[in-house]
Amino acid sequence: KSYKVIEMTSNCLDIESLIKKSHEAKAMAYCPYSNFPVGAALITKDGTLYTGCNVENAAYPVSLCAERTAIVKAVSEGHREFQAIAVATNMQDNFASPCGACRQCLIEFGSDWDVYMSKPDLSYKKMTAGELLPLGFTPDKLINFQ
Amino acid sequence: KSYKVIEMTSNCLDIESLIKKSHEAKAMAYCPYSNFPVGAALITKDGTLYTGCNVENAAYPVSLCAERTAIVKAVSEGHREFQAIAVATNMQDNFASPCGACRQCLIEFGSDWDVYMSKPDLSYKKMTAGELLPLGFTPDKLINFQ
Amino acid sequence: KSYKVIEMTSNCLDIESLIKKSHEAKAMAYCPYSNFPVGAALITKDGTLYTGCNVENAAYPVSLCAERTAIVKAVSEGHREFQAIAVATNMQDNFASPCGACRQCLIEFGSDWDVYMSKPDLSYKKMTAGELLPLGFTPDKLINFQ
Amino acid sequence: KSYKVIEMTSNCLDIESLIKKSHEAKAMAYCPYSNFPVGAALITKDGTLYTGCNVENAAYPVSLCAERTAIVKAVSEGHREFQAIAVATNMQDNFASPCGACRQCLIEFGSDWDVYMSKPDLSYKKMTAGELLPLGFTPDKLINFQ
Ligand SMILES: [Zn+2]
Ligand SMILES: [Zn+2]
Ligand SMILES: [Zn+2]
Ligand SMILES: [Zn+2]
Repeated sequence: KSYKVIEMTSNCLDIESLIKKSHEAKAMAYCPYSNFPVGAALITKDGTLYTGCNVENAAYPVSLCAERTAIVKAVSEGHREFQAIAVATNMQDNFASPCGACRQCLIEFGSDWDVYMSKPDLSYKKMTAGELLPLGFTPDKLINFQ
Repeated sequence: KSYKVIEMTSNCLDIESLIKKSHEAKAMAYCPYSNFPVGAALITKDGTLYTGCNVENAAYPVSLCAERTAIVKAVSEGHREFQAIAVATNMQDNFASPCGACRQCLIEFGSDWDVYMSKPDLSYKKMTAGELLPLGFTPDKLINFQ
Repeated sequence: KSYKVIEMTSNCLDIESLIKKSHEAKAMAYCPYSNFPVGAALITKDGTLYTGCNVENAAYPVSLCAERTAIVKAVSEGHREFQAIAVATNMQDNFASPCGACRQCLIEFGSDWDVYMSKPDLSYKKMTAGELLPLGFTPDKLINFQ
Repeated sequence: KSYKVIEMTSNCLDIESLIKKSHEAKAMAYCPYSNFPVGAALITKDGTLYTGCNVENAAYPVSLCAERTAIVKAVSEGHREFQAIAVATNMQDNFASPCGACRQCLIEFGSDWDVYMSKPDLSYKKMTAGELLPLGFTPDKLINFQ
């Protein structure tokens, strides 16, 4: 019942391990409606790993994605600063990119951290959270206005 | 109780009118929790206008944004092809950009149509739905896979 | 492009017409992922009718239900007081009951109004919005606390 | 970084400890928009504890509740059968009841398990997940139909 911590420093992030963890996390996916398992692996600033999977619902809008599962797990354990998240699906021909709602969740915790969108062969594309939501609706906008 | 149709052809879209409609739509916003009214105005391919506003909820995740309100209105009246959507807030210093979840809703209906992010002075930035979600998780990916 | 208004007064609500409208609204459903069309028909306090359908998304959590589509349409046109909503699916053996998220959306606008859960043969069960969410998390709780 | 397991069997669930855990979990809440921390504590069938808190977003609909945070944590660690969940807020005068969307998430994993809605003084009301969503839209309905 304990999370495994990948040995790493922030200057030496083992990307391949992170991506592998995201693919392993697909095994937990609860996706009876889409049959489309998604996994995610999130590394906090202090090097703690949290994995996530999609958790669907008969009422589709109540479903949750793998990336947000990983984020809320980490936040609920006291983390709000992140290094990187890896995303995995079974699509051979497309890198696993987060949906817009997940991108919105990512930038809530900063724009300048890394998103690894992978394929089952562990190849990947890397972009920052901010690059994935150009002109993003960031928390400062709402807070500055109120 | 009827929607007003702006006179236009797809080659002659009156952008200023569209943006004005999005600002007028803020008046309907139900936002007792954020006090942050948002308006949207959507033009379908055949030139029909639908406006939307944010509709919040005491349970924040059950809230809905202005852009998605406009989209579901249009879809529920039989439209699935869109020319453009304008988005409006009261922020003087930031263009009103859609949240990630709304961007995801926009690309469900195509990547190559226009999003006008405006300020109260009616100045705006224009990007396509697809540009707002680079490497977006588009419907073809899910459908091709299944 | 205009909504049709059913002739009625609040003392003489034609329930069968409302339920029929909810079944007709299924025709607009955008549900390529579930193939489960849902329709809704909402009557405001002043007798205006709004219909809704489910509008799904490749990213399932970004989908929206028929009931909420109808509600946000009405709110975005200036209505916040409702008499009744009818819900329709193609299930022969079950009354079409709203998901929990929709029930939460309904009680945002009052607990004491009617929800008609129907079958394709137009038979129905009626409950109030409040009865569908016993001990519901209503707006007054959040507002009183803040 | 490991979850603590409360010593218990399913016949001897220590409710007071569970409710205390739900109140402690409020400390992790990320709620800069509502300033309304919510905590949850979930016990799986095999006696493992997962806590959750609300995780809000500048785009309100992208927020997530404490109860669903706890559920997706458990599912992503391989659990799909639950004994009970406790919910906690700082409201002195109201028992902390789940929103409709969370109730929908609860019944995805069964209707016959316990929800403890508490106050800061640890007093509570107990209802089952199914009782909280009468005539609920349960997974069997969608699956049987498709
Ligand atoms: Zn997502
Ligand atoms: Zn939005
Ligand atoms: Zn619903
Ligand atoms: Zn909730």
